[in-house]
Amino acid sequence: MNYSFLLSIALILLFTKLFGLATAKVHLPQVVGALVAGILLGPGCFGILHESNFLTYTAEIGVILLMFIAGIDTDMNVLKKTGPAACLIATLGVFVPIFVCSGVYLLFFVKSFSYTALMKALFIGVVFAATSVSITVETLNEMGKLQTNVGATLLSAAIIDDIIGIVVLSVLSGLGDDTVNPYGVVAKIGLFFLFTFIVGLVVYRIFKMITIRHSHTRRLAVWALAFCFIMSYCAEKLFGVADITGAFFAGVILCNLTDMKQFVAKKLTVASYLFFTPVFFAGIGLKIKIESVGANLIFFTLCLIIAAVGSKIIGCGLAAKICKMSNSDSLKIGVGMIARGEVALMVAQKGILSGYIDPKILPSIVICVVFAALITPIILKWTYSGENK
Amino acid sequence: MNYSFLLSIALILLFTKLFGLATAKVHLPQVVGALVAGILLGPGCFGILHESNFLTYTAEIGVILLMFIAGIDTDMNVLKKTGPAACLIATLGVFVPIFVCSGVYLLFFVKSFSYTALMKALFIGVVFAATSVSITVETLNEMGKLQTNVGATLLSAAIIDDIIGIVVLSVLSGLGDDTVNPYGVVAKIGLFFLFTFIVGLVVYRIFKMITIRHSHTRRLAVWALAFCFIMSYCAEKLFGVADITGAFFAGVILCNLTDMKQFVAKKLTVASYLFFTPVFFAGIGLKIKIESVGANLIFFTLCLIIAAVGSKIIGCGLAAKICKMSNSDSLKIGVGMIARGEVALMVAQKGILSGYIDPKILPSIVICVVFAALITPIILKWTYSGENK
Repeated sequence: MNYSFLLSIALILLFTKLFGLATAKVHLPQVVGALVAGILLGPGCFGILHESNFLTYTAEIGVILLMFIAGIDTDMNVLKKTGPAACLIATLGVFVPIFVCSGVYLLFFVKSFSYTALMKALFIGVVFAATSVSITVETLNEMGKLQTNVGATLLSAAIIDDIIGIVVLSVLSGLGDDTVNPYGVVAKIGLFFLFTFIVGLVVYRIFKMITIRHSHTRRLAVWALAFCFIMSYCAEKLFGVADITGAFFAGVILCNLTDMKQFVAKKLTVASYLFFTPVFFAGIGLKIKIESVGANLIFFTLCLIIAAVGSKIIGCGLAAKICKMSNSDSLKIGVGMIARGEVALMVAQKGILSGYIDPKILPSIVICVVFAALITPIILKWTYSGENK
Repeated sequence: MNYSFLLSIALILLFTKLFGLATAKVHLPQVVGALVAGILLGPGCFGILHESNFLTYTAEIGVILLMFIAGIDTDMNVLKKTGPAACLIATLGVFVPIFVCSGVYLLFFVKSFSYTALMKALFIGVVFAATSVSITVETLNEMGKLQTNVGATLLSAAIIDDIIGIVVLSVLSGLGDDTVNPYGVVAKIGLFFLFTFIVGLVVYRIFKMITIRHSHTRRLAVWALAFCFIMSYCAEKLFGVADITGAFFAGVILCNLTDMKQFVAKKLTVASYLFFTPVFFAGIGLKIKIESVGANLIFFTLCLIIAAVGSKIIGCGLAAKICKMSNSDSLKIGVGMIARGEVALMVAQKGILSGYIDPKILPSIVICVVFAALITPIILKWTYSGENK
């Protein structure tokens, strides 16, 4: 046995946390610090750490846990309340960025149009489909504006855009292999949702029964985690759908079990922050090789940033306007949805694994995610600056 | 990426918990159930799961976590109170089983005496050195006898025998490579303890400082875990000492930080039971191949059981008698120390990794551990049966 994996994990834990705390000090999400730690430790910079089989698998479990927890944390009541407006905002907020960011990729990297080229472009688009609302929530909370109509709508829209984003990713992952029949792929995805629905009905009842007798016991968290892994595995193996889609819907299935959801989410969050998530974020950083950055890539990155930020403001703002919100509120909604985060990185990781995203472009994606996270609070505060407190 | 590791983990979580709950129903430790689950799933029985790189590394982290938590849970006050008697009981309770069980191995498997043969025999002996006191504690607690002199002495002796056992294991691991100078090995082990002492002084102060400002924050658990991994790595790489020794003493260094120890132990325990420990126990089961069992091995197993059980009763009982305890109390002490558990399995795992324990003997060891766990509560209750409640 090569014991250096212990040192790798120790360094990852130490540095992602140190840098995470540093970024938190300047009111940025800890994710940014964790990414930077990975880049610095990795072959792109000091070269202390390298990718390994163990780290890759651990990172994958990290992603699966994050999506499962996101699923289990879904609050159906909030979704119901802000319903139609949030739906439209999420939908336009997913498809406008996909369209615009894919376009930027096509402009820069594709000379002759092909199926593979389109798939590659769409993957870049989907990376920027899902909003990460945590930064917005923090900023609004700080300003005391979270309990407003804008705040509630933003929250719901962010949840729905996760779901739409992940469905689009599933379709794309399925279509990824161009030797297969696209109708067959769509049918398989349909079957996946049917499967999830039926399994959901059964598993929901089983967990409800267990919860009545043992609402806060270890076994509940263990069962839930096993269920999450089985759904992830089935999604990939039986239906050709991304494993994180399976994990997310495994969480959604359990999200109405109010007795257990908080307990299970809490326990899984401990395992997640203590071990798996740091490895995932650092793993993204490890994939980045700085030497591959040329003038063309820098210009692409700039355009991608403008596309990713602008498309969310326009897409979501327009949708808000259609739902008869005021100009000022529409702008706030648009700006509030700019930030990207974990889901963007997960989709990028999936894209690299499936060969549709060139690892050379990863630095652009990461810079774009970090930049969007940086400016969201700044612009958001500015949109509120005209108002009286 | 091969997604079957998700299914492996899911099956391990599901079945170790199911069988663990079943054994808990009949008042046996869940470890027994988890072992059985591993044997059933593994190549020895249904052959659904096989060892893999990822599972081996995960299992190793499981062991390291268990030892770190054991270290951090060490209660120095109890140790001080029951001092000398517990020390003698632990010492004889370690060396008599090493002597007797090694002897049994030599009788059965060694025709001509050699350095390697002696090392192999001693490894089998060390497997049965450390007591697992949890079963005894549960039994005494159930009978309302835990808060007695016998109960407190048993608890201390079990902690001390972990420490002695792990030091002996370190010496043995160091001596394992017969090409190196034995004096050099002993010097290295001395250096390890010096290193642990100096690092301990520094790290203890650092943690004390952090704890004052942030006593219950995530970072504390993350730092502690990183420290545990670094100590495990240094033990192996710099000093040729077993990684679990490093983990255990990393825990001992932090065990006096009363503010943080419970918090950190709680968080690590969650990660441990939710993911890592089940993989460790199931992994032991996966290593067992039933087809390799012959008449000689069965007879060896029987003798090993008698040696493992008898040597603890005699060694610890004698020590108690020397410390002027009554005949009846001495017997109780001896019987209370019979049970083996996690540490025995860890040493066995180490022995297999280093090539000193033949995987063919693993079934005998596991059966012996399970058997000792089974009979401890039965004999212990019998030793109390003559008394008035």
